[in-house]
Amino acid sequence: MTHVKTSVAIIGAGPAGLLLGRLLGLAGIDNIVLEQRTRTYVEERIRAGLLEHPTVEMLTLAGVDGQLRSNGQFDDGFELRFEGQRTWIATADLTGGHRTVLYPQQEVVKDLLRARDHSGDPIVFEALDVALHDLEGTQPRVTYRDPDGSEHVVTADFVAGCDGFHGVSRRCLPGDVRKEFQRDYPFGWLGILAEVPPSTRELIYAHHDDGFAMHSRRSATLSRLYLQVPPDCDAAAMPDDWIWAELHKRLGTDDDWVLAEGPIIQKSVTAMRSFVVEPLQHGRLFLAGDAAHIVPPTAAKGLNLAVSDISVLSEAFMEHYHGTGDHLLQAYTSTALRRIWRAQEFSRHMTALLHHVPGNEFEARLQKARLQNLVMSESTRAAFAELYVGLPFEGHPERFL
Amino acid sequence: MTHVKTSVAIIGAGPAGLLLGRLLGLAGIDNIVLEQRTRTYVEERIRAGLLEHPTVEMLTLAGVDGQLRSNGQFDDGFELRFEGQRTWIATADLTGGHRTVLYPQQEVVKDLLRARDHSGDPIVFEALDVALHDLEGTQPRVTYRDPDGSEHVVTADFVAGCDGFHGVSRRCLPGDVRKEFQRDYPFGWLGILAEVPPSTRELIYAHHDDGFAMHSRRSATLSRLYLQVPPDCDAAAMPDDWIWAELHKRLGTDDDWVLAEGPIIQKSVTAMRSFVVEPLQHGRLFLAGDAAHIVPPTAAKGLNLAVSDISVLSEAFMEHYHGTGDHLLQAYTSTALRRIWRAQEFSRHMTALLHHVPGNEFEARLQKARLQNLVMSESTRAAFAELYVGLPFEGHPERFL
Repeated sequence: MTHVKTSVAIIGAGPAGLLLGRLLGLAGIDNIVLEQRTRTYVEERIRAGLLEHPTVEMLTLAGVDGQLRSNGQFDDGFELRFEGQRTWIATADLTGGHRTVLYPQQEVVKDLLRARDHSGDPIVFEALDVALHDLEGTQPRVTYRDPDGSEHVVTADFVAGCDGFHGVSRRCLPGDVRKEFQRDYPFGWLGILAEVPPSTRELIYAHHDDGFAMHSRRSATLSRLYLQVPPDCDAAAMPDDWIWAELHKRLGTDDDWVLAEGPIIQKSVTAMRSFVVEPLQHGRLFLAGDAAHIVPPTAAKGLNLAVSDISVLSEAFMEHYHGTGDHLLQAYTSTALRRIWRAQEFSRHMTALLHHVPGNEFEARLQKARLQNLVMSESTRAAFAELYVGLPFEGHPERFL
Repeated sequence: MTHVKTSVAIIGAGPAGLLLGRLLGLAGIDNIVLEQRTRTYVEERIRAGLLEHPTVEMLTLAGVDGQLRSNGQFDDGFELRFEGQRTWIATADLTGGHRTVLYPQQEVVKDLLRARDHSGDPIVFEALDVALHDLEGTQPRVTYRDPDGSEHVVTADFVAGCDGFHGVSRRCLPGDVRKEFQRDYPFGWLGILAEVPPSTRELIYAHHDDGFAMHSRRSATLSRLYLQVPPDCDAAAMPDDWIWAELHKRLGTDDDWVLAEGPIIQKSVTAMRSFVVEPLQHGRLFLAGDAAHIVPPTAAKGLNLAVSDISVLSEAFMEHYHGTGDHLLQAYTSTALRRIWRAQEFSRHMTALLHHVPGNEFEARLQKARLQNLVMSESTRAAFAELYVGLPFEGHPERFL
């Protein structure tokens, strides 16, 4: 049985928890990160990453932007395809130069872990059976045990629940104050990794009457491709021939663009869900990232929303420890939710724009009209681009750093 | 039994039919208008009118813009209200100066009828039992009888079906080629006319958790006000006290704005529906206006879409009679439908933005996010304004006049 005292106990070593720990560390606020998985698991938990402009700014503030600036792919836009047409959506030009960056989420995690190694701030992997206590008092406690069975206690001023959708933190909001909003979409994404150089440098989002398709890249030699499938699709059962045929068809253009094929080395299906919990705080517990909300992958807002939450929460903790009040902590839920719901709405919009919903021909015609609006109207493209590259963050921890 | 020959037989003396007749007349193309109702009925069929910028241009081209320029209310924008906030949406500034005009539809009809009186082109009221024949041949015929029972035949090159949603024209599309798209909304509008000067000059659209409300004007001394109600609401059964209480609540603001009350002299409930038929043509029959599509009233696109259809159809007839081909006639369906579906989508969007749909809290949060986007983002306002003031028309009859 060990007993540690700290200012902020952070549950979860994903991007939200690690970034919060990093920013608090830079502000001189001691904190501990507790993660139930191993370091290897966390570092290899592969997730797509499309970093919004303000996410890059926040990672720069945290001093962990070196690798992403060297290795990330800075994008000026993306290609939209439907009915064989190709339309370049110049998101950077439409937003005064704000570029998105293709950089895998696990690389963000590794960068943050390296920074934490360097700072020496405490982090515990394989923290099992994490439980939160006394959240409504002034000295909440977090208990966990290590793989050997030893019990540990952390006493903190605050607990940050950054432990994802399946974590324990959200369940600590009492049932009578917790409100959960959820929508499950009637489709999933079959994602494949193929050993072939990407056919095009840029992201391609395609609408087709047989379903959405997407072309992305993992590296110079690995293509990342997605197909809309039924949500209960068994990835392993989908023949490679069928996958390539669907990709050729759905990504097909009226010109001579060709999709390059290569050996498929990974297949998986992702369900698509929107989820938000309200409020984001209870007593001295504050939720951030996937613990508080899930977005469908279409607009790639998950990681960015986590960083956005942390911009608000880190500033609020800094205000507290700089002795200038708890106004921001008290306002955390309402401040963070404004941007969370706007990102949810954009994710829903982009999902509805690109996916095929069978059996509703009226909706299918309206969907074509929305696609036409994007192609034909610069102001529609500008409104889309503003949300795509990322709305400004609501938090400003930089004023304390 | 009389027998008349003409170039274009126009069924219906609403804005679509009368404008088509007017433009054809100006181009020297003879035509007849057949209307089943009396002239008085047509002139007094009261409809709201919010004229898009390109609609005003088309009425100007037709030489019937005198009254609307004198008596119409040219608007630079509208007020959006929700949660007690008032936001001015400067639609003219956002679109390079394109203003909308509040001018009742029946006044447009009167202006067009006066112009037809002046030109002397034929128009028949109380044309009963209109029937269309031989639409697939080169000489279609229209038969009708007058109130005395006499039979009449019109032989024409083309028939323009401008006889509204309940007219006979659309039903002449054979079932095996006709495709109808329809959505009924789970609410209606209770509209009232009150003897009190409008409380505000400008249009006000309000979202409230109890439902949409709208403030408009009929004249300097008559207010026009609307409330979202269940679609089966019985207007006569709604007490005046309840109506005013709901209007005060839903239009209420955080400041000292006051809604002026006056005697309610008219109450009615409008159901809300989206409808489109495809194709818009069959043989020598061409559909335009409400015969082809219905929009919910929220964005006031009905009259404007009728004028937009006529811009395309009149140009196509002019191309034919100027001997330069039938390309535009053949393309009428695809050309007109592009704008029809974009207007349907905007009407759906504006309806979904402002109305309360009970029992879906996730959707209600997304709706608030969309309202926030409008308030907070100039590019979102610009994209909205472009569709609100009216996309450019696809037809260009001016090149033949």
